[in-house]
Amino acid sequence: MQFPSKLIENAVNEISKLPGIGKKTALRLVLHILREDTATTLLLSESLVKLRQEIQYCQQCHNISDGPDCNICSSHRRDPKLICVVEDIRDVMAIENTAQFQGRYHVLGGIISPIEGIGPGDLQITSLVQRVQSSDPRIDEVILALSPTMEGDTTAFYLTKMLKDFDLKVTTLARGVPIGGELEYADEITLGRSIISRRIYEST
Amino acid sequence: MQFPSKLIENAVNEISKLPGIGKKTALRLVLHILREDTATTLLLSESLVKLRQEIQYCQQCHNISDGPDCNICSSHRRDPKLICVVEDIRDVMAIENTAQFQGRYHVLGGIISPIEGIGPGDLQITSLVQRVQSSDPRIDEVILALSPTMEGDTTAFYLTKMLKDFDLKVTTLARGVPIGGELEYADEITLGRSIISRRIYEST
Repeated sequence: MQFPSKLIENAVNEISKLPGIGKKTALRLVLHILREDTATTLLLSESLVKLRQEIQYCQQCHNISDGPDCNICSSHRRDPKLICVVEDIRDVMAIENTAQFQGRYHVLGGIISPIEGIGPGDLQITSLVQRVQSSDPRIDEVILALSPTMEGDTTAFYLTKMLKDFDLKVTTLARGVPIGGELEYADEITLGRSIISRRIYEST
Repeated sequence: MQFPSKLIENAVNEISKLPGIGKKTALRLVLHILREDTATTLLLSESLVKLRQEIQYCQQCHNISDGPDCNICSSHRRDPKLICVVEDIRDVMAIENTAQFQGRYHVLGGIISPIEGIGPGDLQITSLVQRVQSSDPRIDEVILALSPTMEGDTTAFYLTKMLKDFDLKVTTLARGVPIGGELEYADEITLGRSIISRRIYEST
């Protein structure tokens, strides 16, 4: 693309480094920014710089936080004997939205993926083991809430091995047909596994 | 959405003000930014602020420019007697890419659209008339290169009325079946009009 202005070219190049945004979309965003007030652009720009420079990670669960301890780890209402291991903050937000979990989290910061060059050393696994070792009160259960993909399963397998010497329960999320979905549209692996792991019917 | 950090919430809110970006996409971008170097974020942020604060518009054609006159208006190779009227900078870039136009531009900065509340007064129409009036050498032809939509046609109609007292040709882009497209997939209005406006076949 040939740009009539260096300023536009720079802005388009920087914006199109973001994932899922190509040069055409970046140009559309740039033209939008030029139509807005300068104040709006300054707010956007400032929020990005502040985000990058001031962000902290909870020293216990490694979740993104505004202070040294996150709201969940510092809350006395959350069960310290129950830890839910997740990939990143989006999973914390998804699980919090269900309002079904009263324990604390441990954010790995990623998932083991040989293709992307992410090994166990790049994740918060050692700190999980240390946390289990030194926790007082003792941790009863670690829930592995990882995505049901090959990378998620690999990570879950690795974590199970690392935690096998401790006296605790390691559990994983139930897998099966999603609630509200039509059976005929469920993929065959999910449907097949949900037949194998069928449960006694409980009328409520 | 409940965010575990005010910084994330601010950044997500600011990013999701951009067109076509919702809260989920904004959160994905924020997490990407947190994984990148601080330097990358600073470059992005700086490019936006510089864009907004230092951008200039060519005083002749109102195209985005790095100086008081754009490259095209200040070039002696471009025919000053031929003006192509376009909606915005993206159209200038698209026409420049064809390398078929050797005149200069006039960027309206939008298109007449009652639905979006954009009237003739919001566009660079008065300055177009002034430019035609005071131009030396005299302008021979004004090409209305506007989108073939209802808004584009309205704008073209208005401009034709404004320019009718001047001794110049007002032309518009040829309309017809797009080159390289299969005839059966052309919409009926385009196909119908291209039959009405058929031309003598010229073998080359």
